[in-house]
Amino acid sequence: MSSQPENLQARIVEGVKRVLGERAGMVLLHGPEFAGHEWAYVKECIDTAWVSSAGAYVGRFEQSLADYTGAKYAVATVNGTAALFVALQLVGVQPGDEVLIPALTFIATANAVTYCHARPHLCDVEETTLGLDAGKLGAYLREIAKIEGGQCINKRTGARIRAIVPMHTFGHAVDLEGLLAVAQEWGLVVVEDAAESLGSFYHGQHTGTFGRLGILSFNGNKIVTTGGGGAILTNDADLARHAKHITTTAKVPHAWEFYHDETGYNYRMPNINAALGVAQLEQLPGFVERKRRLARRYLDEFAGVGGVRVMTEPAGCASNYWLNTLVLDKSDKGLRDQILGALNEAKIQSRPIWQPMHKLPMYDKCPRMDLSTTDNLSGRIINVPSSAGLMAR
Amino acid sequence: MSSQPENLQARIVEGVKRVLGERAGMVLLHGPEFAGHEWAYVKECIDTAWVSSAGAYVGRFEQSLADYTGAKYAVATVNGTAALFVALQLVGVQPGDEVLIPALTFIATANAVTYCHARPHLCDVEETTLGLDAGKLGAYLREIAKIEGGQCINKRTGARIRAIVPMHTFGHAVDLEGLLAVAQEWGLVVVEDAAESLGSFYHGQHTGTFGRLGILSFNGNKIVTTGGGGAILTNDADLARHAKHITTTAKVPHAWEFYHDETGYNYRMPNINAALGVAQLEQLPGFVERKRRLARRYLDEFAGVGGVRVMTEPAGCASNYWLNTLVLDKSDKGLRDQILGALNEAKIQSRPIWQPMHKLPMYDKCPRMDLSTTDNLSGRIINVPSSAGLMAR
Repeated sequence: MSSQPENLQARIVEGVKRVLGERAGMVLLHGPEFAGHEWAYVKECIDTAWVSSAGAYVGRFEQSLADYTGAKYAVATVNGTAALFVALQLVGVQPGDEVLIPALTFIATANAVTYCHARPHLCDVEETTLGLDAGKLGAYLREIAKIEGGQCINKRTGARIRAIVPMHTFGHAVDLEGLLAVAQEWGLVVVEDAAESLGSFYHGQHTGTFGRLGILSFNGNKIVTTGGGGAILTNDADLARHAKHITTTAKVPHAWEFYHDETGYNYRMPNINAALGVAQLEQLPGFVERKRRLARRYLDEFAGVGGVRVMTEPAGCASNYWLNTLVLDKSDKGLRDQILGALNEAKIQSRPIWQPMHKLPMYDKCPRMDLSTTDNLSGRIINVPSSAGLMAR
Repeated sequence: MSSQPENLQARIVEGVKRVLGERAGMVLLHGPEFAGHEWAYVKECIDTAWVSSAGAYVGRFEQSLADYTGAKYAVATVNGTAALFVALQLVGVQPGDEVLIPALTFIATANAVTYCHARPHLCDVEETTLGLDAGKLGAYLREIAKIEGGQCINKRTGARIRAIVPMHTFGHAVDLEGLLAVAQEWGLVVVEDAAESLGSFYHGQHTGTFGRLGILSFNGNKIVTTGGGGAILTNDADLARHAKHITTTAKVPHAWEFYHDETGYNYRMPNINAALGVAQLEQLPGFVERKRRLARRYLDEFAGVGGVRVMTEPAGCASNYWLNTLVLDKSDKGLRDQILGALNEAKIQSRPIWQPMHKLPMYDKCPRMDLSTTDNLSGRIINVPSSAGLMAR
């Protein structure tokens, strides 16, 4: 089952080509499909001149999100980063606090913590889920943390650790059971970064609905897009009300008076973007089904091929397979970059996983645990084209 | 020329009705008009599946803004509040600094300062422009400020005063000449909040292009809308480049690598919103002309009516007359609210000016000068319907 680098590179390009079939032009990593009521709804916004924040599609979009995910409440926002920043504030993250996040994540997870003037505390991930490693985190906290006055304190820095932000990488649910237990043991709030996992379920329950709050993203590269957009999910009525209030400038309702009772944000999703979202959500079950079918093809194609595996959904979970993921056996950035070069040259848009947070200049001095799995994985991962549109309806 | 309250109320309702003519349903304070290429451009985004941040309309929108305003560079953002927050950071506003802003402004001006963890320092406005009073500000700074090590220090608080943010209220340019002189004398950076003044010129030059940076808003109630959106204007190539970089997550360009070199923001304007904006900007000169014609009607209607005046553009300026403004002679919130009630009851959407910042719980302890003109004005102002669509093309 071993293979030479050049053979592996050729085998991967050939395999991905076989999965995708003949295509004209560049096959995008992930592109949206607008085959539903997108134009009808957007046109209605334009024709009625309700394109901004006061239109009816925002409410419809929020209700559709709640219905699909099973969250009691959904609050639409201008994007996922804004949603995460607001969610962290809502659970009481304060300047100087630390927030536990995976080192292997998109930059928005760390940035949202920074916007609170809090500090990302970088944690290692599991090879199976690419998400936070609950066992390793639990052991680490026993080493560096203590409970004092009901709060979790980092004994090394003296700072309060307030929250854990698990991120469901490429649509695969993290070990929520393990992480919720760690959070409970240490009095930490869980805020789920489900930006990539709309359509992914953990033991039958939608990701993003396990934490006190969860967030979604509808950027153009996501399974469902609003152009730009995000949402906050929660089952807590007070938090939902507060989320809506501070994402809409904290204006107190009045027939004409402009009175704001706290520092709010202009993080409203415009109606025209929500209209797109309502049409997209109507097609979400179909998108998930087609993306899962595409993933099955990748899995079958590379089954038994030495040197590489295709990431599969964790046991008990149903993934949206947002981005299909090849994991090379050996950490070798030279090999990874050669394969990426060959794929992109073959007009197959492919990318590596993000640079881990501790490799970026603004986060390289953050507190962190041993990150050996992150370091080992980051040179081995290649995402390949994953749009629902690649599969027939 | 004096008038009894009840007569004045009746006269105002009658006058506004005469200006507006017969209308079915509620006449909005300000609604957009989509009579140009909005459909075509937005449909193109949907048909080509380029709705998000990578599409070509964003660049076109930025170029059109630069062309119209005469700014060398325009950077589109997710809204005006985000643009102002980023602009303040770009000119070096740091936590603990103070920023001089009008007490009479929309909440976003103050909030953007707060997001920097800096402190709004509230200044009084002029009755003529409703914007910052340069003369009063100059006198106040001579009293409370000193220059130390090239920086302007508030002698009372010890904090550095870093910037002045003039806001062009309802589309009327502030006394820029006076304010730029004060800024120069005290080493302060000027960042113009031109959220309301796209289409307004000060001595022939577009508002928002006098400060180191200026910002615009394209919210649904503005002269031109993108659903939600904003922009940063500047003549400085480095600042423009930096503005683009940090509003697009500070990602360093690479064929596939995800490397970010500083803490950036997800403040991109989506392509679908920019498409709307491109179509709207094509119609901007017509919108301005029609809005100015409507303003002329209000001015004529209320000329010589005792107890109220219609705000007119400052000498040497050409205003977009974003919101037409009635200024009552006497500060009397009872009278103002009665008139607002009568107008809204007559299906004429009208509103007062915002609560001044020092009347809001989060800003009532901010440093401030004497705010007597602000206090006096805030009970006397009524905005009346001002959409371009109220006038024939």
